[in-house]
Amino acid sequence: MSDQTSSDQPRYTVGVDFGTLSGRAVVVRVPDGAELGSAVHEYKHAVLTEALPDGTPLGPDWALQVPSDYVDVLKQAVPAAIAAAGVDPAHVVGIGTDFTACTMVPTLADGTPLNELPAWASRPHAYVKLWKHHAAQPQADRINALAAERGETWLPRYGGLISSEWEFAKGLQVLEEDPEVYAATARWVEAADWIVWQLTGSYVRNACTAGYKGIRQDGAYPSREFLAALNEDFAGFVADKLDQPIGELGQKAGVLSAEAAAWTGLHPGIAVAVGNVDAHVTSAAARALDPGQMVAIMGTSTCHVMNGAEVREVPGMCGVVDGGIVAGLWGYEAGQSGVGDIFGHYVDRLGAEWTHAVLTERAARQRPGQHGLIALDWHNGNRSVLVDHELSGLLIGETLATRPEDVYRALIEATAFGTRKIVETFNEAGVPVREFIAAGGLLKNQLLMQIYADVLNMPLSVIGSDQGPALGSAIHAATAAGCFPDVRTAAESMGRVEREMYTPDPAAAAVYDELYAEYSALHDYFGRGGSKVMRRLRAIQRKALVSEESR
Amino acid sequence: MSDQTSSDQPRYTVGVDFGTLSGRAVVVRVPDGAELGSAVHEYKHAVLTEALPDGTPLGPDWALQVPSDYVDVLKQAVPAAIAAAGVDPAHVVGIGTDFTACTMVPTLADGTPLNELPAWASRPHAYVKLWKHHAAQPQADRINALAAERGETWLPRYGGLISSEWEFAKGLQVLEEDPEVYAATARWVEAADWIVWQLTGSYVRNACTAGYKGIRQDGAYPSREFLAALNEDFAGFVADKLDQPIGELGQKAGVLSAEAAAWTGLHPGIAVAVGNVDAHVTSAAARALDPGQMVAIMGTSTCHVMNGAEVREVPGMCGVVDGGIVAGLWGYEAGQSGVGDIFGHYVDRLGAEWTHAVLTERAARQRPGQHGLIALDWHNGNRSVLVDHELSGLLIGETLATRPEDVYRALIEATAFGTRKIVETFNEAGVPVREFIAAGGLLKNQLLMQIYADVLNMPLSVIGSDQGPALGSAIHAATAAGCFPDVRTAAESMGRVEREMYTPDPAAAAVYDELYAEYSALHDYFGRGGSKVMRRLRAIQRKALVSEESR
Repeated sequence: MSDQTSSDQPRYTVGVDFGTLSGRAVVVRVPDGAELGSAVHEYKHAVLTEALPDGTPLGPDWALQVPSDYVDVLKQAVPAAIAAAGVDPAHVVGIGTDFTACTMVPTLADGTPLNELPAWASRPHAYVKLWKHHAAQPQADRINALAAERGETWLPRYGGLISSEWEFAKGLQVLEEDPEVYAATARWVEAADWIVWQLTGSYVRNACTAGYKGIRQDGAYPSREFLAALNEDFAGFVADKLDQPIGELGQKAGVLSAEAAAWTGLHPGIAVAVGNVDAHVTSAAARALDPGQMVAIMGTSTCHVMNGAEVREVPGMCGVVDGGIVAGLWGYEAGQSGVGDIFGHYVDRLGAEWTHAVLTERAARQRPGQHGLIALDWHNGNRSVLVDHELSGLLIGETLATRPEDVYRALIEATAFGTRKIVETFNEAGVPVREFIAAGGLLKNQLLMQIYADVLNMPLSVIGSDQGPALGSAIHAATAAGCFPDVRTAAESMGRVEREMYTPDPAAAAVYDELYAEYSALHDYFGRGGSKVMRRLRAIQRKALVSEESR
Repeated sequence: MSDQTSSDQPRYTVGVDFGTLSGRAVVVRVPDGAELGSAVHEYKHAVLTEALPDGTPLGPDWALQVPSDYVDVLKQAVPAAIAAAGVDPAHVVGIGTDFTACTMVPTLADGTPLNELPAWASRPHAYVKLWKHHAAQPQADRINALAAERGETWLPRYGGLISSEWEFAKGLQVLEEDPEVYAATARWVEAADWIVWQLTGSYVRNACTAGYKGIRQDGAYPSREFLAALNEDFAGFVADKLDQPIGELGQKAGVLSAEAAAWTGLHPGIAVAVGNVDAHVTSAAARALDPGQMVAIMGTSTCHVMNGAEVREVPGMCGVVDGGIVAGLWGYEAGQSGVGDIFGHYVDRLGAEWTHAVLTERAARQRPGQHGLIALDWHNGNRSVLVDHELSGLLIGETLATRPEDVYRALIEATAFGTRKIVETFNEAGVPVREFIAAGGLLKNQLLMQIYADVLNMPLSVIGSDQGPALGSAIHAATAAGCFPDVRTAAESMGRVEREMYTPDPAAAAVYDELYAEYSALHDYFGRGGSKVMRRLRAIQRKALVSEESR
């Protein structure tokens, strides 16, 4: 094994972060983590929500992607980042990747995505189901009801509820809506692993998504009996399509193939790290791997990850997985399925004069409570702590005097209240949040950060990189390449954090306590059964769309 | 008395409708009601909601106007309408007016508005309080609590609740917030009467606003004891500032003064009708004066007026007044304080490509229920049947897939549900709605009209004029001028209606029954005490604004 002093030659790794709309490559120096160059490539097909590329329409709550867009990131962004960094590709010793999750690719046995075969190109279920594909809620509901009824031991590890975003609900939806596509799917692959497969030529399943999204606990998946009880034809789902050798995070999945070397301009044979998830790699980039350090990766959505020394059951968390963030600790995950997406959706419909910058500047002039509004941040469903993607957005208090900056600020606050709900739930479950470290694209909005500090009534630490996931992937690549003995050592050397960048204002925190009480009351009323109007609206919507199609 | 066959000379009347943002004059032929020409003049100061003309800031929920803007309508729109009609002013035999209500002008004893005096020009309370000035809710709350406690017999005539929009709440606000302005106010005048005062030189109080907005029942106002119990200094409010001889609707208030003749280009000495309200005159224009014929004047807000043979107590109605619409019947009134205003507020913030026409065209392609949304139409408070201007708007069901036309349609539907709530309340109170006749600016939106028919599950009749209030005022002018024996005879001759223009679609009506059940549940939860979050948000807002001012 080499270490960071064994050679006078400079050494670099490449981290590639596959996000919702684009992929970003960054070239990082070993051992100090300096980010020398980066490049972004936007997915040609972005997110398919209304129709396939050939015009085949999609139902409500669908969200698909095209896997060749991911390969284009390897071909475009990686060479561009190397060029921007001005380094010799010969000095790049490893590449690591992270991905959105749960994002699923249906493939042949050799990894070929089904949608690339002409026979399946017009079938929606042959495409990648992006994390925010929310059309499998009926399947998730059945999984949850059956697991509770049978007392499945894995259920509490996921806060009592399996998400419609995950591998089983999405897989069951394929079976029940397009059995032919299901039958043709030899492997049901996390995109996090599919991209590593493209880099190395071999399929290794990462411990992180297998544990969180794949319901793998204590070495086992849900049983054949459980699956058969959901649907007889689903009995072989794990054995036939899912099970695969597991790679631990930071391990080497394999080496760069000649084909992938040609795509990227890197040298064949360098280390390729086991696949990973954008949020989870960011913990390493933010040097936040100790128990109680909660990292929030705040972008289109927010993912919360935190290590704990012991396993605890936290209601509504996404999951707790042994080694799910770093080997040797229990990795806890929670999330908010809409954050920046909610602001973007609001702003996109306004007049051109209402940019994020203008709205932020105007909203910053207000005092907390001044706009008279309160919102629920469920425009993309609720991941934690309610785990219900039939929920939807709510805005109360609008008057004829309400201005766009009022709504904008209320939406920011709503996402902060959602974060507080998660933090309080962890605290109450005996997994205390000792430090809150923010990462992700929303860092650049200082108003938002201050609102989060005020709403949480906690100081906020901030990652020292604006491309945290890619830096985290580069740290995992350095570990996989043997530059460090383990991810924690690599993170101490290459990660960056600024402690207590934002501190709460006591007067603002007091007003937010009042507003949070309102948020909590509405949260429980609409999310915990007081009124099921949100679910009924979805049902009425589906019925209307069916009669629309039958006209 | 002359009648319509007594002369070969043509005869015309002028109706002038003073709306929220502009005044409209129309020249109408007697006896057939043909509309020969019209003109609109927009108020220079529109509605003051943020500041006085000199920059003095206003609080939340304020809405003021400048009375000289009303006189400008007489000077501009009346001559322009005469010119457009191409008639000889010598053949105009009368002029009638209608106004928004309750819209209050504080004046000296001679009718001079206080704001026109330099000493008061920077004092917000010296200006006209427009109907939608909603900052007197605390005063209204006290009026209602005290009246209920004392068992005041007039309270049930107003559905059990006096509105913050009306004469007493607004007057009490002046006293308590600016006692100097209150002391300087010799007369507290409905704008409907103030404009007639400008035309004739003498002050006659009309039976309609005195009854509805002025709490005049069976010839009496609330007692001095009641007023003193509200506030000692308010004891003389009626005797000192309000009481005035009453003119019945359709009577002659006086004749056109030389000064007003010069403004309008009409001949001095012609009949000027007693002041009236936009909604109430429209009943005559729509030939809808029989018991059970509900006229809805749908514009920025909606007013519902209907005659009944007997007096009944309808919970949450605005009021029931003997001769409040036409002599000899009990006039019922209800209303929705935000309708077109709500759509306008939404559209104004969207990108320029989202016009009312585009949104309507796209919304019309949808089936009921397809957008998955439900709204409460309380952006301007709730007039009927909750009578609470601390209530505010609500939107549930928004997702990242929600498009502007979805919200637009949901807002239209919300106002239709609000109308249905009013119709059902009348039906249940034993004052059945037998025919629903629509009037006002929203008539031109055929999608909206069809949605109302489907939501109400009733055919909709439609007034045969797109300037119903002005036509109604002209009908009252013709009566005042003696061309007809009474308003009902005049209306039969000069009014116009098209019966059953829109009929409900049974499939749509069935879906709307489901959605109306959701609307009703939310209506009661947020409007009848299940959750008082809307009121608490207002309180938090006021507190924030106070601390803002004290910074």
